[in-house]
Amino acid sequence: MNRIGAAIIGVGRIGQVHLKNMVNSHCIQVHWMVDTTAVHGNLKELANVYNLVDTKITTPDRFETVMADERVKMVVICVPTGLHKEFIMKSLKAGKHVFCEKPLCITVEDVKDCYGEAKRQGKTLLCALNRRFDKQFAQAGLLAKKGAFGKIRTVKMESRDNQTNLEYFAHNKGEEPEFCTAIGSHTSVLSEGFQSYGEYDTAMGLIKFKNGTLVHLDLNRMTCGGYQQSVKILGTKQGVDITNIRESQLEITDDKGTHLSPYHLVDGFLDRYLDSFAAEMSHFINVVKGEEECTVTGGSVIMATKLVYMLTEALQTGSKVYYTP
Amino acid sequence: MNRIGAAIIGVGRIGQVHLKNMVNSHCIQVHWMVDTTAVHGNLKELANVYNLVDTKITTPDRFETVMADERVKMVVICVPTGLHKEFIMKSLKAGKHVFCEKPLCITVEDVKDCYGEAKRQGKTLLCALNRRFDKQFAQAGLLAKKGAFGKIRTVKMESRDNQTNLEYFAHNKGEEPEFCTAIGSHTSVLSEGFQSYGEYDTAMGLIKFKNGTLVHLDLNRMTCGGYQQSVKILGTKQGVDITNIRESQLEITDDKGTHLSPYHLVDGFLDRYLDSFAAEMSHFINVVKGEEECTVTGGSVIMATKLVYMLTEALQTGSKVYYTP
Amino acid sequence: MNRIGAAIIGVGRIGQVHLKNMVNSHCIQVHWMVDTTAVHGNLKELANVYNLVDTKITTPDRFETVMADERVKMVVICVPTGLHKEFIMKSLKAGKHVFCEKPLCITVEDVKDCYGEAKRQGKTLLCALNRRFDKQFAQAGLLAKKGAFGKIRTVKMESRDNQTNLEYFAHNKGEEPEFCTAIGSHTSVLSEGFQSYGEYDTAMGLIKFKNGTLVHLDLNRMTCGGYQQSVKILGTKQGVDITNIRESQLEITDDKGTHLSPYHLVDGFLDRYLDSFAAEMSHFINVVKGEEECTVTGGSVIMATKLVYMLTEALQTGSKVYYTP
Amino acid sequence: MNRIGAAIIGVGRIGQVHLKNMVNSHCIQVHWMVDTTAVHGNLKELANVYNLVDTKITTPDRFETVMADERVKMVVICVPTGLHKEFIMKSLKAGKHVFCEKPLCITVEDVKDCYGEAKRQGKTLLCALNRRFDKQFAQAGLLAKKGAFGKIRTVKMESRDNQTNLEYFAHNKGEEPEFCTAIGSHTSVLSEGFQSYGEYDTAMGLIKFKNGTLVHLDLNRMTCGGYQQSVKILGTKQGVDITNIRESQLEITDDKGTHLSPYHLVDGFLDRYLDSFAAEMSHFINVVKGEEECTVTGGSVIMATKLVYMLTEALQTGSKVYYTP
Repeated sequence: MNRIGAAIIGVGRIGQVHLKNMVNSHCIQVHWMVDTTAVHGNLKELANVYNLVDTKITTPDRFETVMADERVKMVVICVPTGLHKEFIMKSLKAGKHVFCEKPLCITVEDVKDCYGEAKRQGKTLLCALNRRFDKQFAQAGLLAKKGAFGKIRTVKMESRDNQTNLEYFAHNKGEEPEFCTAIGSHTSVLSEGFQSYGEYDTAMGLIKFKNGTLVHLDLNRMTCGGYQQSVKILGTKQGVDITNIRESQLEITDDKGTHLSPYHLVDGFLDRYLDSFAAEMSHFINVVKGEEECTVTGGSVIMATKLVYMLTEALQTGSKVYYTP
Repeated sequence: MNRIGAAIIGVGRIGQVHLKNMVNSHCIQVHWMVDTTAVHGNLKELANVYNLVDTKITTPDRFETVMADERVKMVVICVPTGLHKEFIMKSLKAGKHVFCEKPLCITVEDVKDCYGEAKRQGKTLLCALNRRFDKQFAQAGLLAKKGAFGKIRTVKMESRDNQTNLEYFAHNKGEEPEFCTAIGSHTSVLSEGFQSYGEYDTAMGLIKFKNGTLVHLDLNRMTCGGYQQSVKILGTKQGVDITNIRESQLEITDDKGTHLSPYHLVDGFLDRYLDSFAAEMSHFINVVKGEEECTVTGGSVIMATKLVYMLTEALQTGSKVYYTP
Repeated sequence: MNRIGAAIIGVGRIGQVHLKNMVNSHCIQVHWMVDTTAVHGNLKELANVYNLVDTKITTPDRFETVMADERVKMVVICVPTGLHKEFIMKSLKAGKHVFCEKPLCITVEDVKDCYGEAKRQGKTLLCALNRRFDKQFAQAGLLAKKGAFGKIRTVKMESRDNQTNLEYFAHNKGEEPEFCTAIGSHTSVLSEGFQSYGEYDTAMGLIKFKNGTLVHLDLNRMTCGGYQQSVKILGTKQGVDITNIRESQLEITDDKGTHLSPYHLVDGFLDRYLDSFAAEMSHFINVVKGEEECTVTGGSVIMATKLVYMLTEALQTGSKVYYTP
Repeated sequence: MNRIGAAIIGVGRIGQVHLKNMVNSHCIQVHWMVDTTAVHGNLKELANVYNLVDTKITTPDRFETVMADERVKMVVICVPTGLHKEFIMKSLKAGKHVFCEKPLCITVEDVKDCYGEAKRQGKTLLCALNRRFDKQFAQAGLLAKKGAFGKIRTVKMESRDNQTNLEYFAHNKGEEPEFCTAIGSHTSVLSEGFQSYGEYDTAMGLIKFKNGTLVHLDLNRMTCGGYQQSVKILGTKQGVDITNIRESQLEITDDKGTHLSPYHLVDGFLDRYLDSFAAEMSHFINVVKGEEECTVTGGSVIMATKLVYMLTEALQTGSKVYYTP
């Protein structure tokens, strides 16, 4: 079978998740693994595990060599966020399709630059917003697209984890935000630590869209009960709950009541969204093959990035922040 | 307002539940309370609590006086089961409507006699099968009547309590059973005690109806987790679960998972079915008023009684027991 | 039995709920029913239904006569909110205990005046915040009081109904708010109507307490799916969900999935909280009897009223509103 | 890395599931694919998909050649059940470890022969009872082993599908059955078809274990709502529900109620238990490596087979069938 030639740059925790999905897709030939790891011991071991006998290993400073390899049609970028733009631009300019971890870039301007370049080169640039490939988020997104909710009245996201991700709200929304506001607080058992780093461990944000839709964000770090991320959408016709997934669906009953399994306690985000990583890689491969159209549009990534900046500013200043298109 | 004159005989635990519902219906004038309680201290206290200034108190041996009271249109019977038939027959013959606790009588013949008398007198005889007045059982029964399930394939009842009731399965079924089988066992923490009384603490029964419907009964005494009684009906078109009701719907989440409130732990049966007792009394009153038709038919009570005897025989003999119409 | 003499003023929809609970408590003798209803036809009918043979019926302008009746120990006030203060003050000054519907008064000052008078007279003034007597809210409140949540990090209330009630958040909180903010919107199918009345059909509010607790309010009118009111509390140790109650717990499964009964569709608020009305009346009676201490403190009612004003101002001005003790 | 040499015989629907798990385990080198497919077109395509450049393809009649290949340490058998014993015995006698689809053999004697040979050869023979590797079944099994349930009082299995599997009940049970009974019926929309094949579409069985544990089996073919398989275990200390898994956990609410996603509608068994197939292969590999002890013991497979025969006989004869060790 004709496999798609690929390179991966950045083979850390999330890079290894993507590498495994590339190998197990059986559609990709990994020609290059690129990382800074001094002696590449770890990369050699990975190549051994996956029987990647023809895969070359190199360092980021020799990225031009990789780009010069005409067999490479796609690049998977998992380096630290600050380096994303550099490798996105180099890859696109070399005529490769790009799959890049989120967030795509640090500034809105950089995101726009990258999508501009992708357009000029006629190549795909997919920002790996994996939740959109979660079975439940995808199903809810499809319902929204089909108008099943009627007009969307409110959207509420609850994220109980050490990480915060805000990109969901531009999804399936042609509508523009009007303004947002946000409040941060220190309430966790480690609140002193967060305070010393100038960070909040508890935050809530409100966004008003121009069409009237109200959005609430509820973000907590250091939460009991495991990784939780739920979304409630209320429309004029129906509402939907994207519920939290438990480690198992076993139910134990004794004289104190019925006990349900906790949410993912250990590798919260990774365990909860494991299937979605495979699904986003599969989608990217199908886009590269020309079999599907990329569903994560540049416009939605630009709006997601803008919203992050609006909310961050609102959190820091305590003031309303208005949207400028 | 024109209240319906009533007498109650047997004012113990369940009798007091019915008395309260009679009083709080504000449709009934209780003319007589009849019980063996020597000095009637308790009955006087009840009369005081409910402000029953005109209510007379007497003993069962003076029941003819009660029957001679023409103001009395209905009798509520809550004496021990062995005495049911006597007071049902006396009440019906005196031209009163009768509400009687379950089980109606000890033998199938006695049940038939009572319904025969009710027919002759043109009076209502309601066997207080309260579960049929539970909001959920009633809703499921209505669905069955409307044919929503298609053909009923299987029915499964789970009853985790100190008591066992088997009357449900004749409900909404014109269909006749073919045979049944049953197995008893001793598995509870008090199994030695049950064994010494010649009783099982664990039993399962199977009933095959002539139309092919299979029924499973699962009965446990001394069960952890509180009073549980659930029914699952599977039809060709849809199935329904009549679920257990918890003490509260509060959900508590911590690092061990999510904890749901137990089922009713203390007064299991009474707490679970509290509303159904008021609903059955309300139905009986409306039947007496001529506003509703009695939904607990004699035919279904006769079949329920037969099934109890068939299952008991199967349990004791270990053999299949066939139904004779 | 020694019944407590009582008067009720205002016998409309909610007044009749309280009247029924007073009668069915069997602890109260209703001496007076007071309402403006011209010919009192309705009140006479109610007296007839409840067999209140000794109960007098009169109009609010003759309230002094009622107050002069020394048998009357407690007054239940269900007149329109604008008249609450007048009758609360008259009742307290006449030495009666008072049960008054929420909201207690229109301004914070009036609420303070009323509680000041209650203190001077040594009488109970209970503002009928019925949700606090709901089995689930009460259980959650008890957990909060016992410190089961650890420090409370966030509280979120979702209220999907035609009415909006904000009093919950002062409950069990000695902590003072710092500021709040709010956004209103028009998103319902009747949004034009609401707009023409100068009202919102969708609103979200944020409150920050001085101890760091963040609160989110989510209020919708004209919502699909029936009356819904849920609260989520997240603490450092555990969190609790006070879930919505469905009309029944029947679960129907077919090829499209499993279908759960809707929330209360018709008399949403009344049906959902029916038991809590009886519980609050029972608590009030026990307080009057001296058997319980009133759990709805003046302080919490004053704070609830303040919060309503803060949020209303924030909604109208679009600005942060700070709390002044 | 040192991969384990393997052969697979029978590469149909379930064989391809195992082949994919073998490849994606990255621990196995597939040396042989054996099937009757005339021109092997399909096998060549599979080899191409998985990049199995060194894998040879042959037919079952040349199985000796495969057995003679010393690189082959393990054989995965997915041929029709009637051929299992032949290939199990040949593989074991050639000194290979064996992974074989369920049911292991057609008769209890054959199962015993196979395990006897495995013991003689000192090789592993794993019967692929995949449900034991399902996350939830495994967790419940572990709880049983640890004694968390106390004494097991009842076990109930509901299986709504076109297939029926009864092997679960010997799992984690040293206890011996005493007798069983069973009833079959025709109730599905295709009941005429089943009847013409001499098969039931609805069946219930009861098993009594010598220690008193009662077991109920509820098997339906052609059931609405998708593939459902749930188990309830009740112990003296606690009970556990192994619940059905839905296609998604999305919850949609409108005026008719809340709608949960159906159970697996299309590839019921495969979709529901997908992860368990990977887990059983992973366990087998670890057993071959010497890193884990085989959890599917010969004794439990022999008892599972006996139970199937006992229940089948009970179903056909309508009589109790007693267990003989």
